[in-house]
Amino acid sequence: MSIDFTVFKGSSTGEIVESKGHRDLKPTEAVVKISHCSLCGTDELFLGADMGLGHEGVGTITEIGSAVSEISDFKVGDRVGLGWFHKFCRTCDSCVKGRQDRCENMTMYSTADFDQGCLASQVAWDVSTLFHIPEEIASKDAGPLMCAGASVWGPLYSTGLRAGDRVGIIGVGGLGHLAIQFASKLGMVPVVFSRTEAKKQAALDFGAAEFHLTDDSADFSKIKKLQTLLITTSANPDLKKFLPILSMGVTVFPLTMSPSEISISPMTLILGNIQIIGSGIASPSSVRAMLAFAARQNIRSQIEEFPMTKDGIVEAVQKLRDGKMRYRGVMVAQS
Amino acid sequence: MSIDFTVFKGSSTGEIVESKGHRDLKPTEAVVKISHCSLCGTDELFLGADMGLGHEGVGTITEIGSAVSEISDFKVGDRVGLGWFHKFCRTCDSCVKGRQDRCENMTMYSTADFDQGCLASQVAWDVSTLFHIPEEIASKDAGPLMCAGASVWGPLYSTGLRAGDRVGIIGVGGLGHLAIQFASKLGMVPVVFSRTEAKKQAALDFGAAEFHLTDDSADFSKIKKLQTLLITTSANPDLKKFLPILSMGVTVFPLTMSPSEISISPMTLILGNIQIIGSGIASPSSVRAMLAFAARQNIRSQIEEFPMTKDGIVEAVQKLRDGKMRYRGVMVAQS
Repeated sequence: MSIDFTVFKGSSTGEIVESKGHRDLKPTEAVVKISHCSLCGTDELFLGADMGLGHEGVGTITEIGSAVSEISDFKVGDRVGLGWFHKFCRTCDSCVKGRQDRCENMTMYSTADFDQGCLASQVAWDVSTLFHIPEEIASKDAGPLMCAGASVWGPLYSTGLRAGDRVGIIGVGGLGHLAIQFASKLGMVPVVFSRTEAKKQAALDFGAAEFHLTDDSADFSKIKKLQTLLITTSANPDLKKFLPILSMGVTVFPLTMSPSEISISPMTLILGNIQIIGSGIASPSSVRAMLAFAARQNIRSQIEEFPMTKDGIVEAVQKLRDGKMRYRGVMVAQS
Repeated sequence: MSIDFTVFKGSSTGEIVESKGHRDLKPTEAVVKISHCSLCGTDELFLGADMGLGHEGVGTITEIGSAVSEISDFKVGDRVGLGWFHKFCRTCDSCVKGRQDRCENMTMYSTADFDQGCLASQVAWDVSTLFHIPEEIASKDAGPLMCAGASVWGPLYSTGLRAGDRVGIIGVGGLGHLAIQFASKLGMVPVVFSRTEAKKQAALDFGAAEFHLTDDSADFSKIKKLQTLLITTSANPDLKKFLPILSMGVTVFPLTMSPSEISISPMTLILGNIQIIGSGIASPSSVRAMLAFAARQNIRSQIEEFPMTKDGIVEAVQKLRDGKMRYRGVMVAQS
């Protein structure tokens, strides 16, 4: 069994190119016909690379490899989500204890399988990294949950936060607008920070309990302390400005894959018991819980649709760069 | 009830001065006659301040305030340890849930009660921050456990590490030589890093499973990955050098109160699931567990004794600065 496919790739000039690919199906892989793929800020980092783009994919299984029904419940016709992670080894200590997101031998977007991406007609994908999409969630809405959703969910669900905790969320964008909804429905208190006054009403509508501007004139002195801080903006904020409103033992999650460094002294870390935690896509069991929670609580990304064509992708990339996407751009397959 | 006392303080010239003080005893305080106080690298930061020095104190209770027997089991004659923390409020959320080390209203060394320090004849001290010293532990050995011991214990005991985990320990000094002993006796694998080949045998004697030099020629490529990394050196190490040997999800503890910043990008943090955790003296329940563990497992600081006089303190500070202290300098009261 093998597949031919088209895939949109980056290139050395930064131009998006439509390319052809071919794959033989491995025993543990399924063929997924892609119906939707949304655009993440991280994709922008790879527009100059000769690699398949897109890691918030949704589609339907059309074929399965010879071992798939032995090791999973996936079958032809299933609607699945996929993206950043390509394959977990299933045998390292991290995999065996259910932290596949820390697999020492994983393959993933940006480091392997450059011939494939989710902005494509179809993919051959290891079933270790596929997820069933609950029927309440439309395919157009599922893509943003695979990376943006799974990135903001981990810190809220798996790091000891509790209902009633004050969750600082910097930025109301692709990640932020989902973080607000999740935190709110988890019974937490979403405290939102943005440079943009125009996003205040949207933040409140998503479930924010408080909205604070972060411009130079901002006065944080009356803000009650935060138990956690999710940084969802592409640029790193000035952490020193936030220090006075961080609780002792605060967890700080820089969730956007920024290559620019953040700096802080051990003295500041120690005196504030500050924890700066690198956290990516949640573990598979956590992503399953997130999908079930989103389905039941009606949590959806607010999306804008674009055709999954070169022009459609270029338009979406530009809108994201201009800071005008509200809040996630979804490419829709044209056939 | 009031006390007069002598205390050794820093001064604007950096000279250590012997000073007189007077205190009225508060209801929740005990008078502790100091027998020993050891010297911590952090004390050096305050030699230029007009404040009482010393935060690894040991002594005997000679008086108690009017409320002490209502709120504690401390009584006259008890041998106690004390130091960095001066008072917990007993009523904030952190105190009520047993994380007094995160008390929002605490007073502590370097920020309050500048008239007192543990390099003194006696102190008036709130009993919320006193600890009973197990009888197996001699007073001269107890001081280093109050700060150095309590700082390395927290990461090993309270953050999810398990027997068998590989614990990287950078530096074989006041903190490091205790961390090696604790990690070893907790069934972990202490993996020690030092610039100084001469410390190899001592590290192995303390319980190190491996010793690696960190000079420029060091080759880390054969080192198995670490589950945690304790930085106990006064200077921040080059984290980039250690990245290849950090497990996914590693916890990194910069334990020395350095004011110089460490820098790392969110991308590096996220891809490695790296957690950089500010952690100071452990919580009181954790310190009690540490003292009991040290008593039972015969874990002691290796100390050098100095008289608790101006000359004795000056000599100890100089030896510490020269990197020649093996491994903790203890000032012994002269009367």
